Amino acid sequence: MSESSGILIGVDLGGSNVRAGALTPGGEMISWRETPIQAALGPQAGVQRISDLITSVVADSQQPLLGIGVGSTGPLDRERGRIQNPYTLPGWEDVDIVNQLRESFHVPVAFENDADAAALGEAWQGAGRGALAEGLPRLVMVTIGTGVGTGIVLDGKIYRGVGGMHPEGGHFILDPTGPACYCGAHGCWESLVAGPAIAAFARQAGGIESSQLCALCAGHPEQIEAAQVFEAARQGDALARRIVDRTADYIALGLVNLIMLYLPDIIVLTGGVMRSYDLMEAHIREVIARHDVVVPARQVQIQMAQLGQQAGMYGAARAAQLLATASDA
Amino acid sequence: MSESSGILIGVDLGGSNVRAGALTPGGEMISWRETPIQAALGPQAGVQRISDLITSVVADSQQPLLGIGVGSTGPLDRERGRIQNPYTLPGWEDVDIVNQLRESFHVPVAFENDADAAALGEAWQGAGRGALAEGLPRLVMVTIGTGVGTGIVLDGKIYRGVGGMHPEGGHFILDPTGPACYCGAHGCWESLVAGPAIAAFARQAGGIESSQLCALCAGHPEQIEAAQVFEAARQGDALARRIVDRTADYIALGLVNLIMLYLPDIIVLTGGVMRSYDLMEAHIREVIARHDVVVPARQVQIQMAQLGQQAGMYGAARAAQLLATASDA
Repeated sequence: MSESSGILIGVDLGGSNVRAGALTPGGEMISWRETPIQAALGPQAGVQRISDLITSVVADSQQPLLGIGVGSTGPLDRERGRIQNPYTLPGWEDVDIVNQLRESFHVPVAFENDADAAALGEAWQGAGRGALAEGLPRLVMVTIGTGVGTGIVLDGKIYRGVGGMHPEGGHFILDPTGPACYCGAHGCWESLVAGPAIAAFARQAGGIESSQLCALCAGHPEQIEAAQVFEAARQGDALARRIVDRTADYIALGLVNLIMLYLPDIIVLTGGVMRSYDLMEAHIREVIARHDVVVPARQVQIQMAQLGQQAGMYGAARAAQLLATASDA
Repeated sequence: MSESSGILIGVDLGGSNVRAGALTPGGEMISWRETPIQAALGPQAGVQRISDLITSVVADSQQPLLGIGVGSTGPLDRERGRIQNPYTLPGWEDVDIVNQLRESFHVPVAFENDADAAALGEAWQGAGRGALAEGLPRLVMVTIGTGVGTGIVLDGKIYRGVGGMHPEGGHFILDPTGPACYCGAHGCWESLVAGPAIAAFARQAGGIESSQLCALCAGHPEQIEAAQVFEAARQGDALARRIVDRTADYIALGLVNLIMLYLPDIIVLTGGVMRSYDLMEAHIREVIARHDVVVPARQVQIQMAQLGQQAGMYGAARAAQLLATASDA
């Protein structure tokens, strides 16, 4: 495959919007577009919408198409190339997106979980770019937002588990006395540090009526959200600060677990909760340093993601490139 | 490298004994010998003792030597080929075993942590053999005994972390309210399920004077050991059964964490505590099944190790073979 001409399309399919970007084989984003997916119109209309978006981005670039990668909100069946997602894409069950795109565009079509695609994007052109160039091949990306997801990139490739499935590094058990989670566990990492978990803990905290938090939520503590907890902590509210410290502690202990098990060269952080990383960084680094005994925990770089919401497009394009290269070989 | 002639030597260096086995490239153990390491005589005498052992096992086999692998009790510095172990090998600090063996025998010398060597041995010729032959390439070996150790084999090779270091899958945090561990954590897996942890919990349990446990330890509850707890549970003692159930629960939750993070094809169990697996298996399988929601946890095979105390020799020999093959290429 030539490195000098042609483009790769990276598609990032979420529950609300779909984005498609045209990237050079060297990893430069030439152009990208976004459109609402309007999942309720059904998968047939949705796949057509994605095809139209790809067509327009390819037309923008005026270059031959080398491959398409799709990073999709899960669950999905990678082996069969199908979306199985009635949760965030209502009505999208057993949607054969890979074959449809392959038949429309006549190029290899890669298909990945969105967390894996984002991790691959950051490893290729984002926070991991320097590390990988230095021969440090193990990257774990952690997204802490509405949920907690991980993507593992080893030696430049997405790590997969049994049957090609995606491990769920947000659902290891960290505190068996913690809240019940839909994953079947009590006190998994997501149940302790995701945005809704932070908000739930704040709502149940004593002393909320006399705190700054109550003012921020206009006297409706039952409607507090995680962002308001971080905002109140910034304003110096003692209760909010305690909740943030508790969150930082659980985030740090979870990162220690990733370090004990993967001992990666770099952990890349992203997601809505991580927008308040500055409020938690000192505590997180202190906890990690305390666990630098049986493994060199402090050698693990902790960095913020660099590609923002474009990471999924970068990673999907990279997955297409890896697939096309493998097909050539 | 020819598959049909010559032998690989696998050395398993522990704190009390050293074993050396001669294996064919196909993975058949031809002969092996064992001798006390007598660590207190110092590393110079010790390395000589290891060399003599290798010489005698090579002589037994009457075949040309292709390579040597050493699986050693850690800590060790793999990159520099040195043992750094004043803990279980008193006086053995910065011992350059790899270069000394290479100069004595003029063959490639591989050097691995003992947990990694055992995992590689089980993957090659033990519990993982069938799985790997079926193209299921992810194996995690868990040793629960005096401590808790893990070895990770991906695609037939030992997985290593930052700087080539060994991850410590026995020290992820599972219950922050648990006991303090030398690793810096409170409530890491080892602090909850290793033999000494089981014994410590039994000693502190209420009601011990009226239990079968007290008879087994001749009226000295402060001297109870984990094996006696399992023995009393077998005899139907209610307190011992409760302690075994608690241990099974923590073992299961730890296995769930390995499943969430690695989603391996197979987990291989070994170690002194695992000799009582039959008392815990039903509970462990029930807990794992309960967490089969976001990952296909029940697809992960859970098997007992098959090579016993020879796993380290098998794995060290396999490491030597992989190194010799890489050197040829």
